[in-house]
Amino acid sequence: MKKKLIPIISGLVFGLVVAVIIFADISPGSKTKTAASNSTTTTSNGDAEKVYVPLGKKDDYYLMASGGHSGQLFVYGVPSMRLIRTVPIFSPDSATGYGYDAASKKMLGGYTWGDFHHPALSETNGDYDGKYLFATDVANSRAAVMDLKTFTTKDIIKVPNTSGPHCAAFVTPNTEYLFLPTRFATPLGQKYASLDNYSKDYYGVMSALTFDKKNEKLNIAYQVALPPWSYDLSDAGKKSSDGWGVITTYNTEEATTTMEINASQADRDYIVLFNWKELAQEVKDGKYTNVDGQKMIFPEKENQGIYLVPVAKSPHGVDVTPDGKYFIASGKLAPAMTVFSFEKAFKAIKDKDFSGERNGIPVLNYKSVMEREVNPENALGPLHTQFDNKGFAYTTMFISSEIVKWNYKTGEVVDRVPVQYSPGHAAAAEGDTASPDGHWLVSLNKLAKDNFLSVGPSHPETMQLIDLDGPKMRVIDTVPANPEPHYAQMIKADKIHTINVYPEDKNNKDAVYKTTDTRIVRNGNTVDVYGIAMRSRFVFDSKAKRPDTIEVNQGDHVRIHLTNIDRDEDITHGFAINNYDLNMEVQPGETKTLDFVADKAGTFPLYCTNFCSALHQEMNGYFLVKPNN
Amino acid sequence: MKKKLIPIISGLVFGLVVAVIIFADISPGSKTKTAASNSTTTTSNGDAEKVYVPLGKKDDYYLMASGGHSGQLFVYGVPSMRLIRTVPIFSPDSATGYGYDAASKKMLGGYTWGDFHHPALSETNGDYDGKYLFATDVANSRAAVMDLKTFTTKDIIKVPNTSGPHCAAFVTPNTEYLFLPTRFATPLGQKYASLDNYSKDYYGVMSALTFDKKNEKLNIAYQVALPPWSYDLSDAGKKSSDGWGVITTYNTEEATTTMEINASQADRDYIVLFNWKELAQEVKDGKYTNVDGQKMIFPEKENQGIYLVPVAKSPHGVDVTPDGKYFIASGKLAPAMTVFSFEKAFKAIKDKDFSGERNGIPVLNYKSVMEREVNPENALGPLHTQFDNKGFAYTTMFISSEIVKWNYKTGEVVDRVPVQYSPGHAAAAEGDTASPDGHWLVSLNKLAKDNFLSVGPSHPETMQLIDLDGPKMRVIDTVPANPEPHYAQMIKADKIHTINVYPEDKNNKDAVYKTTDTRIVRNGNTVDVYGIAMRSRFVFDSKAKRPDTIEVNQGDHVRIHLTNIDRDEDITHGFAINNYDLNMEVQPGETKTLDFVADKAGTFPLYCTNFCSALHQEMNGYFLVKPNN
Repeated sequence: MKKKLIPIISGLVFGLVVAVIIFADISPGSKTKTAASNSTTTTSNGDAEKVYVPLGKKDDYYLMASGGHSGQLFVYGVPSMRLIRTVPIFSPDSATGYGYDAASKKMLGGYTWGDFHHPALSETNGDYDGKYLFATDVANSRAAVMDLKTFTTKDIIKVPNTSGPHCAAFVTPNTEYLFLPTRFATPLGQKYASLDNYSKDYYGVMSALTFDKKNEKLNIAYQVALPPWSYDLSDAGKKSSDGWGVITTYNTEEATTTMEINASQADRDYIVLFNWKELAQEVKDGKYTNVDGQKMIFPEKENQGIYLVPVAKSPHGVDVTPDGKYFIASGKLAPAMTVFSFEKAFKAIKDKDFSGERNGIPVLNYKSVMEREVNPENALGPLHTQFDNKGFAYTTMFISSEIVKWNYKTGEVVDRVPVQYSPGHAAAAEGDTASPDGHWLVSLNKLAKDNFLSVGPSHPETMQLIDLDGPKMRVIDTVPANPEPHYAQMIKADKIHTINVYPEDKNNKDAVYKTTDTRIVRNGNTVDVYGIAMRSRFVFDSKAKRPDTIEVNQGDHVRIHLTNIDRDEDITHGFAINNYDLNMEVQPGETKTLDFVADKAGTFPLYCTNFCSALHQEMNGYFLVKPNN
Repeated sequence: MKKKLIPIISGLVFGLVVAVIIFADISPGSKTKTAASNSTTTTSNGDAEKVYVPLGKKDDYYLMASGGHSGQLFVYGVPSMRLIRTVPIFSPDSATGYGYDAASKKMLGGYTWGDFHHPALSETNGDYDGKYLFATDVANSRAAVMDLKTFTTKDIIKVPNTSGPHCAAFVTPNTEYLFLPTRFATPLGQKYASLDNYSKDYYGVMSALTFDKKNEKLNIAYQVALPPWSYDLSDAGKKSSDGWGVITTYNTEEATTTMEINASQADRDYIVLFNWKELAQEVKDGKYTNVDGQKMIFPEKENQGIYLVPVAKSPHGVDVTPDGKYFIASGKLAPAMTVFSFEKAFKAIKDKDFSGERNGIPVLNYKSVMEREVNPENALGPLHTQFDNKGFAYTTMFISSEIVKWNYKTGEVVDRVPVQYSPGHAAAAEGDTASPDGHWLVSLNKLAKDNFLSVGPSHPETMQLIDLDGPKMRVIDTVPANPEPHYAQMIKADKIHTINVYPEDKNNKDAVYKTTDTRIVRNGNTVDVYGIAMRSRFVFDSKAKRPDTIEVNQGDHVRIHLTNIDRDEDITHGFAINNYDLNMEVQPGETKTLDFVADKAGTFPLYCTNFCSALHQEMNGYFLVKPNN
């Protein structure tokens, strides 16, 4: 095998022409190597160069992908599609000690896993502002907020009366609210009630959450007791439709078993169209009922601000167009995308152009609100729609495994590209904001089948990067993903401004920034350790014979407060106690607390878990627990 | 911005010339896009093509990377460097429900996190055989085995008398043993004992584990009570040195505090050289002491099969050359790699060419065993060495952030390449076997610094792919990694043979393969559910009014046995109960059990967590718990 001449002429960014010709070494015994040498051809038609981000360059976009039943957020770079970070949100995380230190343990509320479907970046004027990301947990009905300065979770709240806020969280254009409709109907308070009384006793509660930026806390403003249907996805109006929200429903049949048949009986389900400004006014006016401490609006009682729009059966996604004029529902069991006009809906509401009512909620006349039905030939299972900067919509087709590009103003289908396989959501660059960027679309596929080296009976999910800038859509990269990215948002990298080191916090009584301030304080059976971590040692009491040893009595309540006083970028320390199942990380400048009872007597090495220096291996000490007897 | 002409001439594999010229669309308003458009040049010198594995091709190698304090295994493809799968081993995993179903919950032994450093693939005749992967846990002192047919963990055992088997697990050439020396010395049984009596009361225990392939179970054969030093890394002899093992030590000073200074006082530490065939014979001959049920060899008593080789202070890695003739120690605080000769060591042992003894263990004469010291100019912090198929060694330099390529038979340094930054281990293709492949080396770097989009104060670790086939080493890709790959092994993809579907197991009393066999059985307060999952429903009792509902009484002991009867590739189902913090996955053909007490009364939706079909969203039912009063 011989190396041969490989000339590459490439370049041309921003008008600059760069021509590089490489003459590769020709030497006997060496072997030309290309990716997947099990292949017989190697050309990638330039795709390889498009996704390759060499050392010294960075990705253009962050892809914030929900981790599904991992409970976490996966942060990828685009176009490289590299996983940069897993941010723990709803599940404890061994890697970072999330769920072990006192603050995160309390936030998790005793739950050990989550199911995170739809990330929502905070918005200002309908555009991502790069400040926060909101998450919801279908598993244990929680909502969370992550801050994008540190990529850490700041608050988690449990949402009562709700069973699986799948249909969330979609924020309003200025992050006034996050709406969390529920996927499963249950009795209020999740109390026991026979399924025989489903229609009477069960509700599908939607929650309206607000976020207090100053204190970084989530709050439930009010709830709405919608009919006992399943609420699937939602979106917020923008521009001319600001103040409105849309939610898809299924099982308006109110079936209680064998849903895959019984919840798909009726030809039509509904989109819930609601005015959150009116709902807020209702709450202000006291038009709500107190249910377990929550302000609950019962639509049939208040009869205001909520409407139903008939839609092809069992819709999945509903997406508001960037101009705010339309909302598009995709009927997973119908082959069509349906475009509805907000303007027409507003007129129908004004004219009381209703075809009936369900559970006291007026049903708008389908024909009065529908703008057009778009039915690409042989396309099956439309689920979700994203947008570019040129007026095109991109809809995933779960069953026919493709992306359909179409003009939402004319209904014209302009392009289709197969994806491998079974796409759920897709994410375009700033693709659900008021001003999408175009360029890239990532298809989040549910099945990998034969795309990658096998890892047993269960394969990874797949993400595919699609180039939107050419005359035709082109899948240029296919990468595996951990289970399970349901939805993702893609934000321009320059919108996010992280910090490198946590600033000193003079008000934090647990923090110690000088070695000489370290100390171990006993009050009765409670031992507080004020310690520091620095390359390459722990100091818990600088005056002690062994400054890196903590000795307590069996049964003591121990609180280890640890501050990382290294202020260099990327110098994170870990703190673990061997055989005590304890673990946390402290990032540069950060202070954290482990709070536990030393119930096991013995000799337990403690050590730094994050490789931090050439002497990291020596960064250890002992935790000694004197037996009671 | 205009699109311009982009001609690419590429190709030429296996003598085949492929010339492709692409004339990109020239249209006003469109924009030329290249990876990292924040760059001004885009050429990758062909590197992009080398790492790009297009749809339809697969990677050539699996990279099995330990996940450090994540407790899990990360499986990457090489050359694409794509993360294909996270396999949970020592920590529960929300994504797969590992640690929730009865079997994995029991295996984890109540521990919630792990710290996995050094994966060890099973070997036959000194080569990876693609059957199993062994793991050890520094956090809670456990060992585990994962099977490569299903990429799932089969057994975990707790290793007593050991505090952090960092220095593990290195397997012998035919997987006769896995050796687990300890990183931290503690009293036997980890009992409480003052550090003032460290040298007398503390030990650094090494464990010899065997693996029963038939039953897929790990077993502790015996333990060795080595001196109270820290044991860092180890390797097994092969070919002419088969039967021997080597272990690096530090803190032979027996310091008990401020280790980064006190454990680096002496100019020399030791390599422990031991003959595991002799140790096995000793155990057979009853030359051991029973300690807490373990067969413990005290070297000073038995005085056989264990020797010390002096080495430059605080060595980190020790690696046996592919020919089995040498072992190379890298002194992280010394600038040199030291090559020792097994043959010379055997002679010194035979000749009793000792310079003294420590704790009853003979110390071989350094000069008699040392083959050469290799000291590349200005190279600092050598840690670990890998090998290629041409007689070259590749050593990571933590402090000077580079890989040094050198000839271990002559000591000649032939090449050096910078890496970004601070490499710990590196992994070459089959690079620690008796027959390395060459081609690829992955440098596992500890710090990312400015390589990727920032994700806050703590950055990802970094892996860099190095092309070994050219005349000079060349870093051709730089990717982020989740915390924290300490070591990795790279195995040829065609050695691993996975299954796609679990076979029917007629002997599994929990399994149900036919809908008509589903049933709910009550015995007193225990309720056994024999259910199935299939696209797109759960059936727990096919004869019930609602086959997908489980109703129990508050306080009942509930066992839900669930079989996934879908036999199509990649159709994994999940099973979760909302607000009950329960979660598991069942892969195609697999049966698992959730075993819990229904302590909370109410109405709880249950649902499939793994997107499985267009009607996945309808794959749900209810778990009803009738209140006690």
